[in-house]
Amino acid sequence: MAKYNAGAEIERLIQLVARVPGLGPRSARRAVLQLVKKKDILLGPLAIAAQDVFDKVRICPLCGNVDTQAPCLICADPRRDDAILIVVEDVADLWALERAGTAHMRYHVLGGRLSPLEGIGPDELNIKTLISRVAHGGIEEVVLAVNATVDGQTTAHYIGAMLADFPVKITRLAHGVPVGGELDYLDEGTLSLALQSRS
Amino acid sequence: MAKYNAGAEIERLIQLVARVPGLGPRSARRAVLQLVKKKDILLGPLAIAAQDVFDKVRICPLCGNVDTQAPCLICADPRRDDAILIVVEDVADLWALERAGTAHMRYHVLGGRLSPLEGIGPDELNIKTLISRVAHGGIEEVVLAVNATVDGQTTAHYIGAMLADFPVKITRLAHGVPVGGELDYLDEGTLSLALQSRS
Repeated sequence: MAKYNAGAEIERLIQLVARVPGLGPRSARRAVLQLVKKKDILLGPLAIAAQDVFDKVRICPLCGNVDTQAPCLICADPRRDDAILIVVEDVADLWALERAGTAHMRYHVLGGRLSPLEGIGPDELNIKTLISRVAHGGIEEVVLAVNATVDGQTTAHYIGAMLADFPVKITRLAHGVPVGGELDYLDEGTLSLALQSRS
Repeated sequence: MAKYNAGAEIERLIQLVARVPGLGPRSARRAVLQLVKKKDILLGPLAIAAQDVFDKVRICPLCGNVDTQAPCLICADPRRDDAILIVVEDVADLWALERAGTAHMRYHVLGGRLSPLEGIGPDELNIKTLISRVAHGGIEEVVLAVNATVDGQTTAHYIGAMLADFPVKITRLAHGVPVGGELDYLDEGTLSLALQSRS
């Protein structure tokens, strides 16, 4: 007997949901079943919202942020400080910094990090647009808010070198003990840096 | 400063995705960002597939299965054995039994289990339709494939009592050691039943 499949449309939806990060084939099946059960309050609105985002979402031509308007809400905000530019690897990092709520500056999204192993060179990232923004003037400080990984630090070094001839201050995020973090669970590298940078 | 939100459409999609079982607010945000990045191969097709399922999905009026045709593919299949009816709590259980691939019978989906604590009585489940299917004749065996939980077993007892006057055999799924399971990790109840039912 052929293996039973729920209708082709349902199977197709399960396959697509299974490709959403954080879900696998099994949880996708369970998720789709719940969506179907709550079709009027969940599946229908989700279909419309997904189509809506698909139709309207834009990559901001200035900073690389994802938004439904271009330039994005941050680039279009006249109250932000033009003098400080925060460079992040990914839109998720920008969102995380915005959730923290302390950054009233501008951003630049690289769209990844330099990684020779994965074949990602400077041309694959939005580095040229970054340099032209800095060259355009008005920026006094570039904060390299890249991840504290080897590739992230390589990227920071590379960008630092590219911007060395411009009259801008290059800074990094501080390393240290996370707020609420327990020393016992921290790696030695972080602890050692936190001790050196004690205040 | 007001907290930054990605465009309203994106926030709405994040909120809906966060209600998908298996995802929370944080992973929903990450998932939506990935969907947006892969908008042509993932977000677009997902929106269409979700709308497609929303438009076409039906609850089978015979067995309670979820399918895009009514009656469902299983009820419509002429090669299945009409004499054996497998009663399950949920469509997910039906799908799991079908994935096992050994059941060439018919199903009946209760849509839940009796649970006085949650206020779920017989009228909330598809028990009347089950009895009328059995009363209609042609069914020789009813397999109560309900979960091995207290509520599941209560449900099985109740249905067993309701069907007691009909000339049908009532059976249950066998309890025992899962295939590939290690005895050491099994609860005592299962082990004891497995020992009693040794063959």
